[in-house]
Amino acid sequence: MAVGEAKFPRLPIIEGITLGVAQAGIKKSAHDDLVVVGIEDGSQVAAVFTRNAFCAAPVHVAKRHLADAAPRWLLINTGNANAGTGQAGISNARACCEGLAALEGLPPETVLPFSTGVIGEPLFVDRIKAALPQALASAAPDQWDRAARGILTTDTRPKGACRSLDINGETIHISGIAKGSGMICPNMATMLGFVATNASLGQAELTALLKETTTLSFNRITVDSDTSTNDACVLIATQKTQPLDAEGLDAFRAALLEVMQELAQAIIRDGEGATKFITVDVVEAGSSEEALEVAFSIAHSPLVKTALYASDANWGRLLMAIGKAPVDGLDVDQVTLDLNGVRLAEHGGRAEGYSEEQGSAAVALEDITIRVALGRGQCSECVWTSDLSHDYVSINADYRS
Amino acid sequence: MAVGEAKFPRLPIIEGITLGVAQAGIKKSAHDDLVVVGIEDGSQVAAVFTRNAFCAAPVHVAKRHLADAAPRWLLINTGNANAGTGQAGISNARACCEGLAALEGLPPETVLPFSTGVIGEPLFVDRIKAALPQALASAAPDQWDRAARGILTTDTRPKGACRSLDINGETIHISGIAKGSGMICPNMATMLGFVATNASLGQAELTALLKETTTLSFNRITVDSDTSTNDACVLIATQKTQPLDAEGLDAFRAALLEVMQELAQAIIRDGEGATKFITVDVVEAGSSEEALEVAFSIAHSPLVKTALYASDANWGRLLMAIGKAPVDGLDVDQVTLDLNGVRLAEHGGRAEGYSEEQGSAAVALEDITIRVALGRGQCSECVWTSDLSHDYVSINADYRS
Repeated sequence: MAVGEAKFPRLPIIEGITLGVAQAGIKKSAHDDLVVVGIEDGSQVAAVFTRNAFCAAPVHVAKRHLADAAPRWLLINTGNANAGTGQAGISNARACCEGLAALEGLPPETVLPFSTGVIGEPLFVDRIKAALPQALASAAPDQWDRAARGILTTDTRPKGACRSLDINGETIHISGIAKGSGMICPNMATMLGFVATNASLGQAELTALLKETTTLSFNRITVDSDTSTNDACVLIATQKTQPLDAEGLDAFRAALLEVMQELAQAIIRDGEGATKFITVDVVEAGSSEEALEVAFSIAHSPLVKTALYASDANWGRLLMAIGKAPVDGLDVDQVTLDLNGVRLAEHGGRAEGYSEEQGSAAVALEDITIRVALGRGQCSECVWTSDLSHDYVSINADYRS
Repeated sequence: MAVGEAKFPRLPIIEGITLGVAQAGIKKSAHDDLVVVGIEDGSQVAAVFTRNAFCAAPVHVAKRHLADAAPRWLLINTGNANAGTGQAGISNARACCEGLAALEGLPPETVLPFSTGVIGEPLFVDRIKAALPQALASAAPDQWDRAARGILTTDTRPKGACRSLDINGETIHISGIAKGSGMICPNMATMLGFVATNASLGQAELTALLKETTTLSFNRITVDSDTSTNDACVLIATQKTQPLDAEGLDAFRAALLEVMQELAQAIIRDGEGATKFITVDVVEAGSSEEALEVAFSIAHSPLVKTALYASDANWGRLLMAIGKAPVDGLDVDQVTLDLNGVRLAEHGGRAEGYSEEQGSAAVALEDITIRVALGRGQCSECVWTSDLSHDYVSINADYRS
């Protein structure tokens, strides 16, 4: 299942970026499962990775390589996460990088590895190395859609987003793809996002922009509260435009955030078993921290998520989820709760004039916005989540991730 | 569904305690739904309540009454939680107490109200008041089993536990009942536990014992990570024995903890949709706090719980859940993971010599112990949880709690 129409936008070419795809036979089914992303010399690259202590071998290797050299290739496989694989996993991730680097006459450190799929199985290094020539030969600038399909696991649809801006007479493009459907509660980035722009941005600027925009996009989503071992998000700037002035940078930041949020939301719309896309808006909080505590308390609650799956405007469970969040001295009398514009609760109970018919009509929609006003201050935060359906259980009781 | 055999022990009479039951028509089905517990004058009573900010009206009223007077009656209804009911809910809870108190010629403050069931519906005060004479007339010391049945909601079986000790030539009995199946991640107590003893214990001792034993029992269980609005646990000492010396108190504390843990575990065995009873043992932690973080990270993880439902010894998801816990500087190389005595993982990956056959055989059992050794210190903690099944989704998508 997935929520809403499947739309994959036509992603603009980013000068300096090529994408190649191959079928290496890592996935059991006959699908593309190997993607390479070529990055022109002189580009800047920033990346963020999962904070899970059991982070995967490719995360370790990519962090190290990123510190040692300017990346020229990303090497992404699906079908196997190369996580929980100990020292052998590290060697395997390095071997794949070495294989690609040898074919291109580059040092191995210029290749960043990324893996997604089943945890705990040894990576088929030989199959990956055998498929690399085909992947490299197919590399071209106009293959964002094939690459987006080549990185999927339990996803049911490819995810892409883009923006184009005219700044000082030049056109700046941002193109990005992502994958992810389960084990989604990223802590720093999601599993996996790749975003590129032709803009000229220094390393420090790029890193700051990536951290800022992932915080407000991938770090604001949850399917199942489970943080993956392989999360990673990469932002590449190929330096093809004039440097941005302050105004240009602001415009770029806004556009980049839109791309990141669109990708993050696409992951939720395709969340495992999802039948609803749910926005949780917490306003009038005393701090961002408490707004996030309340928002994630709702977004993680199995009882809220099963009620929404049942199209039940169950405001009692919503009050429960608000009340269990660690917010000191919450005055429940000041809290108001709305669902798609219908006031469900206020003054610690059901809102005056609320009728089940109103609630049922509002909650029947696929896109649901839950708005909680805490009456404590001026801070607000927004997170996105999906519902908890029978299909979520089936997918995760049947699929070995 | 429920895990293991349904056993309700023969609970010993506690001198000074009577239990009465009636069918008030609060529940839609024709079941007992009203329970009264008589407490002899001179008894000591301690109670702990939910920390959910949206705590139910009876929780507010019970706390107030407990501060104002020595309790003589507990008044418990199922079928309606009287939560999310604002000021009207408070008035309704008070009206029920007044009704019972008037029949017994006592001040209303001597009655403590408890409610469980659907959130957000007005309480049928008239039906409760009409059924009170029958409940009071039926009150007798040997009705623990009927009372245990009279407080159930989505529970599929009554829950009781007892211990008897001989101390200084006297027999001390502890009898307790509990209910709870969903919205279970208590923070201070569970929804609902009532435990009584004939022992002589002062108020301060009783309160300390209750806090200590609920921390290690009801506060160590989770079905769905959702903390109820109505959790409460009451401990009554009817002062029928000689005061306990230090040695006697130690023996009593140990027996009380066993009763509390048996009740808490009974809630997990009857967790909504449960097919497995799971013990998560975290050892070699640097502190109790980090042991609990890791234990609850596993016990709350939907991906771990769906894998266990599928009888899949999915150690990759277990490593993921360990790794996402907020433990600074965890050295994954030191972590070992066992399931029912089978070593699944060590040194950051699959254990040497582990075979899928071993894992499948171990995880096929109904009772599963997951043991995580962190290799950081001497602290340990244990929590209990259930799996996440299709029935959990069905129960909570169909039932309006």
